[in-house]
Amino acid sequence: MSIAGQVIRCKAVVAWEAGKPLSVEEIEVAPPQKNEVRVKIHFTSLCHTDVYFWEAKGQNPLFPRILGHEAGGVVESVGEGVIDVQPGDHVLPIFTGECKECPHCLSEASNMCDLLRINTERGGMLHDGHTRFSKDGKPIYHFLGTSTFSEYTVVHVGQVAKINPEAPLDKVCVLSCEMSTGFGATVNVAKPKKGGSVAVFGLGAVGLAAAEGARVCEASRIIGIDLNPNRFEEAKKFGCTEFVNPKDHNKHVQEVIAEMTGGGVDCSIKCTGSTQAMVSAFECVHDGWGVAVLVGVPSRDDSFKTHPIHFLNERTLRGTFFGNYKPRSDIPGVVEKYMKKELELDKFITHSVPLLDINKAFEYMLRGKGLRCMIRMDA
Amino acid sequence: MSIAGQVIRCKAVVAWEAGKPLSVEEIEVAPPQKNEVRVKIHFTSLCHTDVYFWEAKGQNPLFPRILGHEAGGVVESVGEGVIDVQPGDHVLPIFTGECKECPHCLSEASNMCDLLRINTERGGMLHDGHTRFSKDGKPIYHFLGTSTFSEYTVVHVGQVAKINPEAPLDKVCVLSCEMSTGFGATVNVAKPKKGGSVAVFGLGAVGLAAAEGARVCEASRIIGIDLNPNRFEEAKKFGCTEFVNPKDHNKHVQEVIAEMTGGGVDCSIKCTGSTQAMVSAFECVHDGWGVAVLVGVPSRDDSFKTHPIHFLNERTLRGTFFGNYKPRSDIPGVVEKYMKKELELDKFITHSVPLLDINKAFEYMLRGKGLRCMIRMDA
Repeated sequence: MSIAGQVIRCKAVVAWEAGKPLSVEEIEVAPPQKNEVRVKIHFTSLCHTDVYFWEAKGQNPLFPRILGHEAGGVVESVGEGVIDVQPGDHVLPIFTGECKECPHCLSEASNMCDLLRINTERGGMLHDGHTRFSKDGKPIYHFLGTSTFSEYTVVHVGQVAKINPEAPLDKVCVLSCEMSTGFGATVNVAKPKKGGSVAVFGLGAVGLAAAEGARVCEASRIIGIDLNPNRFEEAKKFGCTEFVNPKDHNKHVQEVIAEMTGGGVDCSIKCTGSTQAMVSAFECVHDGWGVAVLVGVPSRDDSFKTHPIHFLNERTLRGTFFGNYKPRSDIPGVVEKYMKKELELDKFITHSVPLLDINKAFEYMLRGKGLRCMIRMDA
Repeated sequence: MSIAGQVIRCKAVVAWEAGKPLSVEEIEVAPPQKNEVRVKIHFTSLCHTDVYFWEAKGQNPLFPRILGHEAGGVVESVGEGVIDVQPGDHVLPIFTGECKECPHCLSEASNMCDLLRINTERGGMLHDGHTRFSKDGKPIYHFLGTSTFSEYTVVHVGQVAKINPEAPLDKVCVLSCEMSTGFGATVNVAKPKKGGSVAVFGLGAVGLAAAEGARVCEASRIIGIDLNPNRFEEAKKFGCTEFVNPKDHNKHVQEVIAEMTGGGVDCSIKCTGSTQAMVSAFECVHDGWGVAVLVGVPSRDDSFKTHPIHFLNERTLRGTFFGNYKPRSDIPGVVEKYMKKELELDKFITHSVPLLDINKAFEYMLRGKGLRCMIRMDA
């Protein structure tokens, strides 16, 4: 029996207050409105951004809210005007969208859609500003337009990537965010050549995804840089061939890398929040052809500072957002790469918990344990 | 009668002391040694870099010296091992070279040859460290390996571009330096698309060459930025369609440009020495696809500073050197473009003086009169 057009009662994880333990509640999910899709989430994983907005230390708190933005699910019903997906389609909800009509969507280079670009402040849906979630009539805010910590969620159609239904949702789920962000930064932006050298700053999940990109591009040297030496052993699985811990040296890490490589690496990808790493990542690339790529969200008072001669010696600095992938146009192809075993995802998923234990997933992340914790919605 | 292998006595302009008027002298020019070429200079023009090293305010003074690095001439004789050019070949001496063997020369991306990269401190020839110039036995230093303010000069074979002998040397001469630097920054690095928008910071000769590049690329809007409004009328000849004088606005020029263009230009080229212009040129490009290109020599204590969000919003910042042209491989092709009327050079040459009046050329430049002053060696 179809439940399309009806309010669904289901389980969801509600963040009631900043930093307070999350609770699994029964909530109501309204039907999708114009250009919206209601999705049954099968798997979702936890990303630092969820934790950051749950802690709400750097932004306006918006609670109660349903967090979550890395997920895989199946379309349950669609609202008016939706023609690109239909009930039964397998989809990844994505935190940034693609309207396919604005100058960014029409540009080959950009994925920063004017209409559906990531918006962390918005708590309602674009169509009417209202939320589709409530508990006993009290509205609960959306997060990034995805709110995947719920058995059912409502997402703008521009924020769902329709994927191969044979792809295992508990694996390709990570392509919703971190994996694509890091992998795309390497393969779409830094673009190392076969046999080239790559430095990856920060060996968290995004950094390891960047390293995976370098491995897929057949770079011959993949140098991982991190302040935590415990990460080096794991990083070998992701293609890293050498490691530098800035703490082990009494000179700048860019000088260490220049010495290791005879002048600098061909490209570098910065996947940490550190301002110092940003400068090092730029200055460690080779003059004449080096490309440095910045990934990651800076804090409000950050600044990037270097001597212009580093640019004039023919270095390039580029920033990237979501690995330069257009969510709807490009992500289905990345899923295919996984299906053809051209890229590995399984190694990113180190833990798994049922929805009821979501606080454990937060704990793993806060303690830096593992990479991705998969949350099983049906368990 | 051949004079190959003999010392030539000829006229040259000698800079005896920093900032003191130059004098035309009769000097001796030794024969070319291994991998060297002796060139009879027909035309040479004056560039800011000559003036900068004549003033010697920012570097170690090296005098007496023969300045000059924009020129066109004919090979008189060649030293041992030279096979790429022969007597009678028309050439442009170039201040930075191409050995064709180092990693930079073998890289598609770079033109920063390890062996022959610009070296402003070197006063002798690479082969033996000695000079080929003297007056009454007293050595006179070389400048940039070119020293074109002399009827005859000796240049490393890696620093001469062999060009079409039908090309007028009094015109293509400017491709030795500024014209290629600005034009190449646009066509090789910024690469605006047909119909795109381009901002050019600084409307001196290099900036106008960058504008000429944008015109050739068929950009639809070419916005010239300069503090001197007198330059705007002239810049129209070089394709500039609009002008911004930062002095006319009480907000940052990047904001003015963003308003004019609905978010920013597709690309910008910074052709001034100003640090503030560097930041403005970067921040005025559109998010998602904007590319900013830095041209020009920074001063020692310059620094480039911006908020990293400007990068993360998918902007690119690249530096360039000599317009990314490889001197020997690429410049002959740029000469051909001129011959086919695909690019204009004549409008850059605003004055002409005989060698004896070279001090006038310095005067024009110091007073900001015109763009290029051609110096006729045979007059």
